[in-house]
Formats: sequence, C-alpha cells, structure tokens
Amino acid sequence: MAITFHIHHRDGAARAGLLVTPHGEVETPVFMPVGTQATVKGLTPEQLESVGTQILLGNTYHLTLRPGDALIAELGGLHRFMGWDRPILTDSGGFQVFSLASQARITDQGARFRSHIDGALLELTPEKAVEIQENLGSDIAMVLDECPPGAADPALVRDAVRRTLLWADRCKRRHTRRDQAQFAIVQGGTDLGLRAECARELVAMDFPGYALGGFSVGEDPSAMHAALPECAALLPEDKPRYLMGVGRPEDLLAGVAAGVDMFDCVMPTRNGRNALAFTAAGPVRLRNAKHRRDPAPLESGCPCYGCRHVSRAYLHHLFQADEMLGPILLSLHNIAFYLRLMAGARRAVGEGRFGAFAAGCLARWGAPA
Amino acid sequence: MAITFHIHHRDGAARAGLLVTPHGEVETPVFMPVGTQATVKGLTPEQLESVGTQILLGNTYHLTLRPGDALIAELGGLHRFMGWDRPILTDSGGFQVFSLASQARITDQGARFRSHIDGALLELTPEKAVEIQENLGSDIAMVLDECPPGAADPALVRDAVRRTLLWADRCKRRHTRRDQAQFAIVQGGTDLGLRAECARELVAMDFPGYALGGFSVGEDPSAMHAALPECAALLPEDKPRYLMGVGRPEDLLAGVAAGVDMFDCVMPTRNGRNALAFTAAGPVRLRNAKHRRDPAPLESGCPCYGCRHVSRAYLHHLFQADEMLGPILLSLHNIAFYLRLMAGARRAVGEGRFGAFAAGCLARWGAPA
Repeated sequence: MAITFHIHHRDGAARAGLLVTPHGEVETPVFMPVGTQATVKGLTPEQLESVGTQILLGNTYHLTLRPGDALIAELGGLHRFMGWDRPILTDSGGFQVFSLASQARITDQGARFRSHIDGALLELTPEKAVEIQENLGSDIAMVLDECPPGAADPALVRDAVRRTLLWADRCKRRHTRRDQAQFAIVQGGTDLGLRAECARELVAMDFPGYALGGFSVGEDPSAMHAALPECAALLPEDKPRYLMGVGRPEDLLAGVAAGVDMFDCVMPTRNGRNALAFTAAGPVRLRNAKHRRDPAPLESGCPCYGCRHVSRAYLHHLFQADEMLGPILLSLHNIAFYLRLMAGARRAVGEGRFGAFAAGCLARWGAPA
Repeated sequence: MAITFHIHHRDGAARAGLLVTPHGEVETPVFMPVGTQATVKGLTPEQLESVGTQILLGNTYHLTLRPGDALIAELGGLHRFMGWDRPILTDSGGFQVFSLASQARITDQGARFRSHIDGALLELTPEKAVEIQENLGSDIAMVLDECPPGAADPALVRDAVRRTLLWADRCKRRHTRRDQAQFAIVQGGTDLGLRAECARELVAMDFPGYALGGFSVGEDPSAMHAALPECAALLPEDKPRYLMGVGRPEDLLAGVAAGVDMFDCVMPTRNGRNALAFTAAGPVRLRNAKHRRDPAPLESGCPCYGCRHVSRAYLHHLFQADEMLGPILLSLHNIAFYLRLMAGARRAVGEGRFGAFAAGCLARWGAPA
C-alpha cells in the first residue's frame, strides 16, 4: 500500500486522522494549497513550510502541457523539480480540460481538446491521465472523471456517472506505481441516488481513497452544505475522503462536519493576490483606505511572515504601489489562515468540541451558519 | 557622529573597511540592493538577509509620493514600516525628479515637477529633501544635487555644480537628526577640473561621507572606468565613498579598484525579473531553450534559495509559464551574486590580491578588462 490512513478521533461525523504517504505524514483534516504549474504562485517551498503546509496539489493538465510530464520524470519527478519533498496530490486533468481548454469533445474513449496555450489538438484518456501522473510521481493520483456542469440535464449527469465508472476501472487497471495511491471520484451532481450508485460501484473497486467531485462547479453553497453529510457517508469509513476544489472557510468547516478529510482550493492564493485577506475576525480588504494609517498587524498571533513583521498600513501600501510583495505576503497569510483553521478543527475533533468550534468560527466571521 | 568608518585593509587604491551605523555594521566594499517603494521587488527582508544583505537603498522621491514620508514617520520610520532593522541609505529624490517626473523645472530654489503617479504639481527643495529623509529615518541621507545629462553642455554642467554646492550647504544647515549621517554628492560630469572644484568645496563643508554622482547617466562605461581613479581620489581618504547608481559587475570592480566603498544599482533585480542571471561564469539567459532539460543548478555553490533547491530547467519553466516565482528566485540570485562579488573583493583586498581577483572575475565573465 502506497498510503495508510488511521483515524485517531471522531466527533459526530467529523474525524481527525493521520495519512502516511511515501513523502511523509499528513494530519487530517488537511487543506492542500494549489501549486498549479509546479509552484504555489509567488511562494517558495520554504515559505509554505513556514506556515505548516503538509501537502500540495499539482495540476496534471497544466504540467503535461508545460513543461511536460516526460520532462518532469526525466528530471526526477515533480517533487524534485519544484524542490518540495513533502507529499503531493495531483488531479487527473479532466476538470481543467472541461474548464480551460477549448473545443473539448468527450467520448467514452476520452477527451479531445485544444491546448489553451497554443491551440494544439490533444487527447486525455483515462490511461493517459494515469501515465502522466505516474511520470509526475505524486503521492496521490486521481482517476480521470467526467464532471458535468452543476445545472446539467439529468440524462447528461447520468451519462457522466456511467463514463466516470468506466474510466475509473480503466485507470485502476493501468495504474502501476506502488509508491503512489490512486483515489476514485464520486460524481452524480445533485442527485443523491446517482451519487450513491456511483459510490457503490467505486467502493466495490476498492480504491485506497475517495473524492467527492462536482461540488466546486456552480453548486450553490447551502445546497452543498445540505448534501455533504449524506454524500460523505456514501464513502468508506476507514479511507481518506477528499472534497475537490472546495472552497471558502465555511465550506471547509461544513466538509469536516460531514466527515471529509482533505480539501484544496485556489481561494486563499487567488484572493491573496487580489488584496483580500481571511482572518479570524472575517475577511479584510487591504486596498480599503481605512488601512492606510493602521499600525496593527493584519492578524495578531498569526505565524505568517507579514503578520509577524509588518502592519496593515504597509500591506495597503504594497497593493497601492502595485508591488509583488503584497500578493506574496497575502497569499502566504491566507494559506496560513486555512492551515490554522484545519489545525483548530483537528484539535476540536480530538477534544470532542468540533460543533462549538465551527459555530464559534462562523460567528466571528459573520458568516451564515 | 551618526556613523563611524574604519579602513582595515588597503590594496593599491582599493580599501576594505567597516561602516558602523545606528542600525548596525556594514562591511565595505558593499552593494546595496534597491528597495524603491519600501520593498526590494518580490523579496522579504528575511530572504534578503539569507544571502547576506547588509544595507538597503530606499528612494525618497517614490516614498514621499506614496505612501508619504509623514505617514512613514508616524508609523515609526522606514525601517519599522518595511520590517527591515538593518541599515538603510536614502537618496535625495533629485535623480528621480529629473528622470521620472514630468515638466521638471529647476531653479536655485529647488525643483518643481509633476508627480508621475497623479500629475500633482510638487516641489523638492534642499530643505524638503532633508526633511523627508529625516521623516524616513534612514541611517544615511543624501543631499539634494543637480544631476545634468551625461552629454550636457559645459555651461549647463558648470551651473549644475554651482547649484549642487549651494544646495549641499542648505542641506547641511537644515539637517538635525543625530542618528542619521548626511553624505554630499560630487557632480561635474566628464570635466575633471569641475569635479575637483566641486569636491574641494564639499570637503571643506566636512560631510561624514561623499558620493560620486552622474556616472549612471548615459556615461559610456570605459570613460567611467578611466575617470574613476582620479574622481575617487578627490574624496577624503578616511570617509566612505559611494558611487551612485552603478552598475554592472565589472563596473563595481572598477569602482573598488578606484577606492570606492559603496554601490547601488537596480541591475540585479531588474535583470532578474527579466530572466537574466549573473553568474561567476558570465550572464545566463534563463528563457533560452537550452536550459529546458538542464538538471544543473543555476550556479553551484551559490547560497541563494534557487541554486540550493531547483534546477535551471525549473527556472526556465517558471519564466515560460510566467510564474512570479521566476522573477523572485532570479532577483534573489542576482543580489546574492553581487553580494558574493563584494565579499570576494573584501577578502582579496585583505589579502593584497585584489588586482588578480578582479582580473580573474573579468576573464571568467568574458568581459573586457
């Protein structure tokens, strides 16, 4: 087994566990910063480690287009290429084919599409998605799935589930690396019956971990929060559960409450680049003129570089002056915030007070419970 | 005295010394990375310290426009504002008024100009330049000077020297901070007689340090190299000498050979952002396709983050993919290169082999000696 997973504490459906991968241990629930093109934008691995990052996500679609997975393999794999020696999870590339590439055409064989970089006609099949991720050498690879739009026609969602199951089976057969775990993805949109059917088939194939897909695509958050407990309960109790591409801090809390163990999202870094900071007291827009003279740190007690060394006034100045250091410091802060949130959730689960922890967070953020 | 300066070793005209400022010690000869808008673009103070940065330069013109020197003073001064507790030198703002602002009009009173940010009509006088830098709280402040274009008419150069002397005197009279040293600037263009006259007058005013101005402005490098020994010799032997805005690695060596102690230039960071790296074997263009598969570090033995952790292939990828981390890592590398060059020069001066050191560098770079 490439990975092992042990649940140390439970609190309702929420779990706190330890995922052991070929590149080290990951305490769950965990947030995985997104390193799309073999870099979390603007940050060194050292900076990511300084705020407690345990595992990164890499994007198969981007990396196979540029610099190419064969080249990364030749250079020793993604870990060595980007100078990150802790765990990495890679997605299958399917989601980006549907969202970024143009003229994507999907058949049972796979997806044909044009590169968003140079328009080249390319194909991504289940087998190819496995081979690319084996070249990348991630600790956890995802099967290729079909992820229809949130508001898709029921017949289309049903067909995407059929194809997702077909592709999961082909991915599993093609997978060879014993130092890499392959996770399956449950689709089914908003149809719980379909999701249950999809989960049942995938569980029968016995993957070492399972993801819930399709929740980052145009789903309305309250519907997702309502659906999560039942969807998570469809997955094996003793294996890691990953909610793909989600989301806001309150969505992570809803996921943990439902029994999810792993999350990824571009929100902390993308918002950080746009001067929006997450804090325990709710979001802070650093471009706002009220921060111009504020000598206080963005967030007291936060271990990130910016909060330890500079003021809100300085961060405001960096964004006003269009200086790179603004996006850098705020990306790092937001990742630190997400990681602190997950660390707090782990402790709360361990102490049997996750419900109070989550309610307290939501009250402080001013977010709807 | 705000600063003390001791020369520990000499080798020909070259010197190795120690400059002690209110925010700590600086070993000379020294290169000062440029932190124009209260940040060296893309780098944290921690990263700057990791490669041995001893002192930074801040730009008075930019900082008085945004966020404003009064605001920086209110927030505890430039060191605290930007989270850098080591020495800082600030320029007077004059050079940027002439090069960046529009409609600059110079009289004996000072310079009137329009802000390059919002077009506001502003004035920079000698007194104002002193006050701004006292608000910033730099360890070393520069007097306001007039820096005519390199190819300026002799009468214009002569008038600029007259005004530079007038302004230096007014700056000295206005200066009050005892924890800040004020350096004078020798102008005179390519006319050594004028430079000698300017230096003689300034030396009589007894400043704690002296700069050579006007060498970064359209001067041809070989003429500068030829003029430097005589120009540096015009300055007091026992005080720090600063060659403003210069330059390429070979220019720094020529400066050290001539007896200059301090340098600043945007070249390492600006070139770094544009994928050009300085190395002991000469410049390397990381966008060049030949680096695509190169597993070697940019420069073996370099202590910068990129050279310790990633390959040329990875740096090439970052620039191809337009990722912020490329400019960040290469800016840091180039600063590390300039600092290593100055550290090597200090050691060589101490061991009486600076000539051989400089010749060896030039031969390895393939630069004209």
